[in-house]
Amino acid sequence: MTNPSQICIAVDAMGGDHAPREVVKGALLGAREYGVKLLLVGKADAINAELEKHDTSGLEIEIQEASEVIEMGEAAEALRKKKDASISVAARCVKEGRAQGVVAAGSTGAAMAAAVLNIGRIDGVIRPAIGVVLPSISNRCLLIDAGANPDCTPEMLCQFAKMGTVYMESVYQVKKPKVGLLNIGEEEGKGNEFSKTAFPILQADGSFNFIGNTEGRDLFNGSVSVAVCDGFTGNVALKSAEGIMRMFRGILKAEIKKNLLATLGAGLAKNALELAAKQVDPEEFGGALLFGIKGLCVISHGGSKAKGIKNAVRVAKEAVETDVLGKITSQIAAKPAVSTT
Amino acid sequence: MTNPSQICIAVDAMGGDHAPREVVKGALLGAREYGVKLLLVGKADAINAELEKHDTSGLEIEIQEASEVIEMGEAAEALRKKKDASISVAARCVKEGRAQGVVAAGSTGAAMAAAVLNIGRIDGVIRPAIGVVLPSISNRCLLIDAGANPDCTPEMLCQFAKMGTVYMESVYQVKKPKVGLLNIGEEEGKGNEFSKTAFPILQADGSFNFIGNTEGRDLFNGSVSVAVCDGFTGNVALKSAEGIMRMFRGILKAEIKKNLLATLGAGLAKNALELAAKQVDPEEFGGALLFGIKGLCVISHGGSKAKGIKNAVRVAKEAVETDVLGKITSQIAAKPAVSTT
Repeated sequence: MTNPSQICIAVDAMGGDHAPREVVKGALLGAREYGVKLLLVGKADAINAELEKHDTSGLEIEIQEASEVIEMGEAAEALRKKKDASISVAARCVKEGRAQGVVAAGSTGAAMAAAVLNIGRIDGVIRPAIGVVLPSISNRCLLIDAGANPDCTPEMLCQFAKMGTVYMESVYQVKKPKVGLLNIGEEEGKGNEFSKTAFPILQADGSFNFIGNTEGRDLFNGSVSVAVCDGFTGNVALKSAEGIMRMFRGILKAEIKKNLLATLGAGLAKNALELAAKQVDPEEFGGALLFGIKGLCVISHGGSKAKGIKNAVRVAKEAVETDVLGKITSQIAAKPAVSTT
Repeated sequence: MTNPSQICIAVDAMGGDHAPREVVKGALLGAREYGVKLLLVGKADAINAELEKHDTSGLEIEIQEASEVIEMGEAAEALRKKKDASISVAARCVKEGRAQGVVAAGSTGAAMAAAVLNIGRIDGVIRPAIGVVLPSISNRCLLIDAGANPDCTPEMLCQFAKMGTVYMESVYQVKKPKVGLLNIGEEEGKGNEFSKTAFPILQADGSFNFIGNTEGRDLFNGSVSVAVCDGFTGNVALKSAEGIMRMFRGILKAEIKKNLLATLGAGLAKNALELAAKQVDPEEFGGALLFGIKGLCVISHGGSKAKGIKNAVRVAKEAVETDVLGKITSQIAAKPAVSTT
């Protein structure tokens, strides 16, 4: 029974380290849990072989053949050669209106390029950006740009702030989201040449709630809802945080193993330890969103397993339901940026 | 009984949130454990009141009066007005040879400025930098610059690499320390304009073991011994890592409290949890080192308690014993940088 109002999410079934097995599995879990229709894109034989392993009763699933795959190590340039790459075909499904959003795991650079080439950017957007909703003990913070544009202009940061504000308002129901400039001190006048130049321009914009500078440690304590920065800074912040968490979990495991009582104790506390770990697990966050593209794109970690893909389907569905894209488009149209590049 | 060969460390007894109580306590712990002589700098009355609370038998302690204090919120400019600030007096004790190193808690900016003004930089050093030895499961990595210079030239990065190499060789006995450029991708050609310009200059220098780009997540996994970057990037990396760790510890505590079995289990695993936490605790690392100053300076976290100060005393002593300063001075003299600023 086809439900014409059902949201359809295209999933690049071939992307990431564990494709197609984990991707198909995760997409099915997402479809069941969040009630979306799936458009699985990739080699039909491989996809069908995976589908056979699962109960798909009651699910709406369509397969779109795509004969090529962008491998994890390949740069975005590979897209120009591989016209029939699954990520490109999946993006075109969004462009053509066959799906309302696309989920891809794997190289963020390739996914970004595929989205720009096949869907295009929203009119008035200087540059698309990557946004990541960070883990937090209380209010969440969207870090934007998390890596798409290593060098930025202040006007790009204003657009990131605007798009991030729409997202946090729509999906997280934050009223007047606080926007901070990621910097190395709280006072105005702190920072490098770029942040000192950007500060007054962000302050003067007026189309979002700029509260001033914010520091690396504030990304995770709920003090701002949107942290804007160039993609170099954002990527370093994100990966440093990921790096220390991975290290700490390794240390914790090693210390617990060293001692019998601790092993027993950790066994009892296992649930709590797991619940805590879950809250800082990148797979639980459903990946990165591309902002400024004329179609909804969610990129999951290249190492994503089913859980990560399932959550990416959720993130895509939430954004479609709350019409993030439509709102961003009208926001940008309301006050187009004058690019200084 | 005075031992003329005993290393003497000057400690700014008035700096940081918990001065003088925790600073004096920590300095005494350090003196006892690491066998150093102390020169406590600050208000003599306040210092003596703290000393009376402890057993100081067998310790060599001298007090140097300093009538003023730089408060945590004050900027480095306050140093020019407060000529008799404890941090400045402590730095001058090093300049005058009364102590071989100085330990200060509190504002890194003020300590850096006090060191530059009162001790001066090593001949040939373009700019002093802040180095922090990061926690790791295996080999340690020195992050330099962690915040002193928001904008840098590639030549400054070469000097940071050189000074960091000497430190990791001397104090951590690393042979040919691997030096990485903190960047957002591993391949050459990745990054922002600055890192793309710096890469070939670091590669051509030849006076350290440059292995290419390194990413935020590699700061904590032992893959490089020295990570060089501008102070803006380094500070964001450091604070983001601190921020997520603080958040995770909060989450873990909350999850454990929610459930009786977990509370019991965590009680049994307490030792392991604490040992793990200790390994990522900034207080255990003894703080940041100033590189490029003609005197040894260790800056502890503004919120340091006795443990943090004790460890800073250790870090200072280790650097004095291994003559880090003398080696850096001859390294820099061997190949002075041509500044492009």
